[in-house]
Amino acid sequence: MKLNFVLAESALELIPKEILKTPAVVSDARRRGVDPSRILLDRSIHHSAMAKLRDSEKKGRPDLVHAVLLSVTGTPLYLDGSVKVFVHTNKDVVLELAEKTRIPKSYFRFRGLVEKLLSEMSDEGIIKAYQSRIRDLVKKIGSGKVIGLSVQGRQTGLEELAEKVVASKSPCVIVGGFPHGHFTRETLSVVDELARVHEMPLEASVVAARMVYEIEKSLTRTND
Amino acid sequence: MKLNFVLAESALELIPKEILKTPAVVSDARRRGVDPSRILLDRSIHHSAMAKLRDSEKKGRPDLVHAVLLSVTGTPLYLDGSVKVFVHTNKDVVLELAEKTRIPKSYFRFRGLVEKLLSEMSDEGIIKAYQSRIRDLVKKIGSGKVIGLSVQGRQTGLEELAEKVVASKSPCVIVGGFPHGHFTRETLSVVDELARVHEMPLEASVVAARMVYEIEKSLTRTND
Repeated sequence: MKLNFVLAESALELIPKEILKTPAVVSDARRRGVDPSRILLDRSIHHSAMAKLRDSEKKGRPDLVHAVLLSVTGTPLYLDGSVKVFVHTNKDVVLELAEKTRIPKSYFRFRGLVEKLLSEMSDEGIIKAYQSRIRDLVKKIGSGKVIGLSVQGRQTGLEELAEKVVASKSPCVIVGGFPHGHFTRETLSVVDELARVHEMPLEASVVAARMVYEIEKSLTRTND
Repeated sequence: MKLNFVLAESALELIPKEILKTPAVVSDARRRGVDPSRILLDRSIHHSAMAKLRDSEKKGRPDLVHAVLLSVTGTPLYLDGSVKVFVHTNKDVVLELAEKTRIPKSYFRFRGLVEKLLSEMSDEGIIKAYQSRIRDLVKKIGSGKVIGLSVQGRQTGLEELAEKVVASKSPCVIVGGFPHGHFTRETLSVVDELARVHEMPLEASVVAARMVYEIEKSLTRTND
């Protein structure tokens, strides 16, 4: 089994044109000595400028994406080469990590790397950036069962989900890379099963960590 | 059960006196407009200055501490008020989080908060900073079973450890808050059982997330 892990509609984008000239953005760009159009939108810095944006509450959380990537890429399953990670953003950009790629643990370095990738849509060797809708991404992955995790799904135990994942040859697990709100209709359309894994709404990084762990446990049981 | 979670000997400290005047530190302080003595030591920024420090390889990883705190404080067990978190540092400072305290997800805000706490040894309401050796901390917690997680321990399944934790009324789990190296003799002296939870050496945040998750599962089984 090779797991395809997709962080969907992630709150990861460069400062949008509409707010390039707002005070919060201009002063941040000046302090960093960087062109504002090459800066990652970050609610903890650009909050006051973000009110003008559509779907503002789903945006500007590079820290959330970083936390999810750390929680997945530190697992034995990932280090083993059994997880392929795709970060799909709310602007339909995909960052595709080569197998076993470690991402910077320092937030500064992570930010620098992602700003370069999104500004240049370049291929930093171990991470490729390209334009793709989630529908096309899932088609390209050509995966078997596609499981989406969402508070809107049917409550299902993580163990049970893990068994289904492991039974598929090329399963795909989709987690939302945003802090509030729900999957778009397009994302829902590619999902075979929508599951809620806890009574409480949990952070994406916690859900991702637990899902990968249960998949590891399920694989160990299968191999025994 | 109430879990006491201790991140021990954490790589979290202000810039030590010996390197206050090194170029990497001076330029960072100038860029941030902050006194160098109030800045967190961070390998991703101060690497070149750190070679002079003793036990340098165990130091300067506030990002690691942040990742562990995020992975523990996002769990249902913590949100429920059933985990008390203590960050013990390599300088014998303890940051004690009030129950259910959420820490900033943005690394910038986390850094600002910790710099204030360590500079002023103050009580920021929800987080208290005070001087304490780990021996005194564990005595103060007055916990039952103390389990340390380390690659030097005896290989033990996380489920088995979780059962032991849950059987104790006020258990204590100790995880190392540093990137390399091992617990000091003092830390080892307070541990009742030293366990290794995987063949691979795993990051503290991954181990902490899994430990808390297995404790939750064990509690659910016990309550059924």
